[in-house]
Amino acid sequence: MSSRWHSPRTALRAHAAGPVADFDADGTPGYDGDKESGEKDLRRVGAELSDLQEKLFAQGRSGGERSVLLVLQGMDTAGKGGIVRHVGGLLDPQGLSVTGFGKPTPTELEHDFLWRIRKALPPAGRIGIFDRSHYEDVLPVRVHSLVPESVWRGRFDEINAFEAELAASDTTIVKCALILSKDEQKARFTERVERPDKYWKYDPNDLAERAHWDEYLEAYQDVFDTTDTDVAPWYLIPANHKWFSRLAVARILLETMRDLDLSWPEAAFDVEAERERVAALD
Amino acid sequence: MSSRWHSPRTALRAHAAGPVADFDADGTPGYDGDKESGEKDLRRVGAELSDLQEKLFAQGRSGGERSVLLVLQGMDTAGKGGIVRHVGGLLDPQGLSVTGFGKPTPTELEHDFLWRIRKALPPAGRIGIFDRSHYEDVLPVRVHSLVPESVWRGRFDEINAFEAELAASDTTIVKCALILSKDEQKARFTERVERPDKYWKYDPNDLAERAHWDEYLEAYQDVFDTTDTDVAPWYLIPANHKWFSRLAVARILLETMRDLDLSWPEAAFDVEAERERVAALD
Repeated sequence: MSSRWHSPRTALRAHAAGPVADFDADGTPGYDGDKESGEKDLRRVGAELSDLQEKLFAQGRSGGERSVLLVLQGMDTAGKGGIVRHVGGLLDPQGLSVTGFGKPTPTELEHDFLWRIRKALPPAGRIGIFDRSHYEDVLPVRVHSLVPESVWRGRFDEINAFEAELAASDTTIVKCALILSKDEQKARFTERVERPDKYWKYDPNDLAERAHWDEYLEAYQDVFDTTDTDVAPWYLIPANHKWFSRLAVARILLETMRDLDLSWPEAAFDVEAERERVAALD
Repeated sequence: MSSRWHSPRTALRAHAAGPVADFDADGTPGYDGDKESGEKDLRRVGAELSDLQEKLFAQGRSGGERSVLLVLQGMDTAGKGGIVRHVGGLLDPQGLSVTGFGKPTPTELEHDFLWRIRKALPPAGRIGIFDRSHYEDVLPVRVHSLVPESVWRGRFDEINAFEAELAASDTTIVKCALILSKDEQKARFTERVERPDKYWKYDPNDLAERAHWDEYLEAYQDVFDTTDTDVAPWYLIPANHKWFSRLAVARILLETMRDLDLSWPEAAFDVEAERERVAALD
C-alpha cells in the first residue's frame, strides 16, 4: 500500500490544499491506485484500524482517558453517510458512537450551540463519528442568516476554544470535509429521483440548498481559514469518487491513531497469582 | 448456504432445546459446515442483513415505526462482545445502537429496573443490540440475593408485559443466550491470564461468579421457562465455537428480519415533477 499512497495528511490538509472553490473533487491526490486497489487497500487499513481501536477501547476500560472524534461535513450527497457505513463499518460497534446532527430541536435551540455536541462526545476509549456537527452553526446557519453575522463570526473563536479544550482532555480530533463538484451532485440527485431504492434519500429542499452553492463555498473557506488548527485539523476529501473518499478518510484516521502510540494496558491484577487460581479451577 | 443450514430458529428455540443444563455447547445443530465455510456463510448472511437493515432504516426515515432489538445474555467469556463485533460489525453503524449494561449506577438504582432499558431502546428504523439487559435483574441479582425472591420472581411478569408492549409498538425482539461449557470457560480464562493482549478482559471477580455456575443455570432455566414467548423468543446459542455462535446469531437475526417483509418506502415527493426539477439544474 505504501508504494501507492503518500502522506494523505499532508496532501489533503486544508491549509495546504488551497481555496476550496478551486479544489479538484475528482482527484485522488497522493494515491495512484484505482477503484479496485482502493477497495483492497481500504480493507487493509480497516484491519489495522480495528486493532488500534481495540487497544484504545482496552485502555478506556483500564482507566485511560483517550478518545477519538471524527467530524464529517459536506454538501448534500457528498457521501457522509457512506463514510459512516464504509469507514465506521470497519470498526467494532462496541467502541464506536455515531451521532447525526440535523436541524436542532426546540430543546436544543434553548441551549448554546455546543450543548448537543458536548452531550454526544465519545466516552473514554471510544471513537465518535459526527455526521454533521457544530460546524452546521457556521455553515447553513450563516448562509441562511439564522443569526446575525456578529454571532456566527464569534463562534469561530468559541469552536477553537472548545476543540482545544477537548484536545487537552485527551480527545483526538480529526475533521474531514467531503468536497464534491456541482456536476457530481447533480448526478447524485438524478440517481435519487430515478431509483426507487434511493427515493428515501431525496429531499426536494436540498435543491434550494444547492442554489446557495457559492455562499456555502465561502462559508466553508472561512471555516478552514479559522478552525484548521494543529489540535483539530481539517482535511479536504475529494468526494467525486466514493471509493477514494472512503479510503482517504480511513487512512487519515489510521495515521492519526498510529500517532497515539496505543499499547495494551498493563495487567490490573497479580498475573502469577491469577494464573494459579485459574489453573486450579474445576 | 441453505444446503448446509436448516431452520436455526426451530433447532435453537429455547423451549425446543431442552434443559439448559444438558445443552451441548459444542454443537453446531442444523449446520454441517466447518469453521471456514461458517465464516464464508457469515459474510453472505451479512450482505443480506445489511440490505434489510438499509430498508429498515429507510422506512424509519420515512415515518415507519419498526425497530429491531437483539438481546444478548451469557456467562462471562461466552462471547457477547464477539457477537457485537462480528455480527454488529456486519451492519451499518448509522442504523445500529449498541448498549452494554453493567452493574447499575446509583442513579439507575433509584429507578425501576426497566428504566435504563427503556432509555436505550432503538429508535424507529434502527437495530439495537443489548450486551446484557433487563435479564441481569433476574440472573446475577437473583443468584446473589440482591432482592428478595418475591421481587425477582415478580419481574418475570413485568418483563413479559414490557416485551409485549414493545412488540405491540413495532419493536421486533430476538433474544440469544450464549451457552458455553464450564471447560471452555476455563480455557478462555486461561487465555486471558496468559496473553498480555487479553489481560484487560480479565477480572478476578469473574472466578467468584463461576463458583455459582449451577445456580446460574437454574436461573437461566427459569428465564427460558417463563419468558420465551412468541413475541420475544429466546434462542440458545452453542458458544464453544465462536465462529458458529456468530453465524447462528446472524442467521437468526436475518430470518427474523426477512419475516418483516421490508420494502423501500414510496417516494414522499412528486417523482415526475422532481425529475424535471433535477434535470433543469445548472
